[in-house]
Amino acid sequence: MNKIKVAILGYGNLARGVESAVLSSSDMELSHIFSRRGNLVSDQGIKIKKSSDILKYKNEIDVLVLTVGSANDLPKLTPEMAKYFNVVDSFDTHQNINLHIKNIAKNAGENTAIVSTGWDPGLFSLMRTIFDPCLPQGKTYTFWGLGVSQGHSEAIKRIDGVKKGVQYTVPLDKALKEVRENKQPKYKMTDMHKRVCYVVAENGANKKEIEKKIVNMENYFKGYQTEVHFITEKEFDKKHKQMPHGGHVIHSGKINGNDTLLEFTLKLKSNPLFTGSVLAAYARACYKLNKDGKKGVYTVVDVPAKYLIDLPYEKIIEKYI
Amino acid sequence: MNKIKVAILGYGNLARGVESAVLSSSDMELSHIFSRRGNLVSDQGIKIKKSSDILKYKNEIDVLVLTVGSANDLPKLTPEMAKYFNVVDSFDTHQNINLHIKNIAKNAGENTAIVSTGWDPGLFSLMRTIFDPCLPQGKTYTFWGLGVSQGHSEAIKRIDGVKKGVQYTVPLDKALKEVRENKQPKYKMTDMHKRVCYVVAENGANKKEIEKKIVNMENYFKGYQTEVHFITEKEFDKKHKQMPHGGHVIHSGKINGNDTLLEFTLKLKSNPLFTGSVLAAYARACYKLNKDGKKGVYTVVDVPAKYLIDLPYEKIIEKYI
Repeated sequence: MNKIKVAILGYGNLARGVESAVLSSSDMELSHIFSRRGNLVSDQGIKIKKSSDILKYKNEIDVLVLTVGSANDLPKLTPEMAKYFNVVDSFDTHQNINLHIKNIAKNAGENTAIVSTGWDPGLFSLMRTIFDPCLPQGKTYTFWGLGVSQGHSEAIKRIDGVKKGVQYTVPLDKALKEVRENKQPKYKMTDMHKRVCYVVAENGANKKEIEKKIVNMENYFKGYQTEVHFITEKEFDKKHKQMPHGGHVIHSGKINGNDTLLEFTLKLKSNPLFTGSVLAAYARACYKLNKDGKKGVYTVVDVPAKYLIDLPYEKIIEKYI
Repeated sequence: MNKIKVAILGYGNLARGVESAVLSSSDMELSHIFSRRGNLVSDQGIKIKKSSDILKYKNEIDVLVLTVGSANDLPKLTPEMAKYFNVVDSFDTHQNINLHIKNIAKNAGENTAIVSTGWDPGLFSLMRTIFDPCLPQGKTYTFWGLGVSQGHSEAIKRIDGVKKGVQYTVPLDKALKEVRENKQPKYKMTDMHKRVCYVVAENGANKKEIEKKIVNMENYFKGYQTEVHFITEKEFDKKHKQMPHGGHVIHSGKINGNDTLLEFTLKLKSNPLFTGSVLAAYARACYKLNKDGKKGVYTVVDVPAKYLIDLPYEKIIEKYI
């Protein structure tokens, strides 16, 4: 059987996650990788081509996975690429997803697009969609972390006197416990998480001042339980170069007085690698949907789980049901 | 808007779970309940009709949820009822699901059937199907419990000298820990669970003999770490009348050396009530699929999650993605 020819646009950690999953899947092959600069070689020894040349390879690509930036690049590139390819992306600006879908739908024609996949949006969205109706008396909580927030880490780095900084979002144990005990608390984001910062200060910088600026920063830290730890650059480089993340989607309620709890947990040593791995699974689904004549734009809530699997239907029932 | 008219065939705890979920859902109403005997009244005051009269009410039913026995009744009744109704069941003989699907498909005509839903088969099946492709380097483990196994409880009760008995399947902490630590152990069912039995002995019965018979029972207890606790009837009636269950679907592996863990956990004070609640969610999906022209037989792996939700598409994206 011919393998599904997967191509990747962009080559960072997200792309490495796609690459790793494709190489672990016997029904897919990595046909091409494209990046703005081109002329590099991937971890697996694949020559990276210039993204401006992508249309030359149109016939060698069954599905294109876009791993470029979500904020600035995907809003333009996914609709553009959908003219030529089946496409998969991890567009993650939650409030603009309906708009993103519309923009792609205009262009997709005979192609299939699966957008906003990964884990949040993605698997977490899927869990929220499944859990709520299965227990309509229940309430859903999403906890993020322990994980690095890039936005918050960048905010720390912009402060005068900060050489390096990272921020971990950490679920509060007390909040997790109350939700799991089905107390259905009314929580804001600030009641559920704390923010833990590790900072390397410039020589001679005023640490008290840096800490004050962090904990009082509007929209980022104010209102949160925030810890600021000053550490050496050596310790920072040793312990805080990873991109861990994860979290919990918890839905709980009572049925005729009986406590009922559904929980999905993710623990990821590398956030982008796992997101890429999920993208690869949806690349398979995208190709299979298109083969089945299902064109247009899809999200995780539109894709039946069987499309993720490389087996005939009866075997899927036998193995997974 | 007209509400979805849900009817239930059978009236035990599974049906009570459907009833509770339907009453908690503003888009559904419980139109009829049928049982073999009829002439009772449901917890919510609905008069229960005789199941032999069901066809008289054909026009008052949008979807029929079958809550009768899975072993003997569903293999005949779901295919039979699919001639007349959209149907949902929780058929749980895993190895016969493909056959069950074929038998219903012959009869369904213009109707839609969703079969083998609930939590295992059901949500657990769905999780296994989603987790595996999202991390193809990983391995999936299903742990059941803490929960009552009816088959094992019945087996205990058949032993001479046993007045009452219940068996809890309990995941072994050590096994859970190793799986969560991504050690990918090669486990059999017996390596992952212990069996804890509470027994009320008849007056004068030989307890040593009963215990010996339990722990050595082929296909049920032999090979397992089994605990047998003899208790008084009073304690049994007080503490062991509930039907708790649940478990964990855990999938773990490494991406380029980075530990990655996906886990779905269920904790249910009442197994049948939650199963019924899931059936109600899939009853909505069944009706909506049929309205969309999607006829024939479906399982959890065929149903896009959006069909579980009573909202327009854009609102689903806004609320859940």
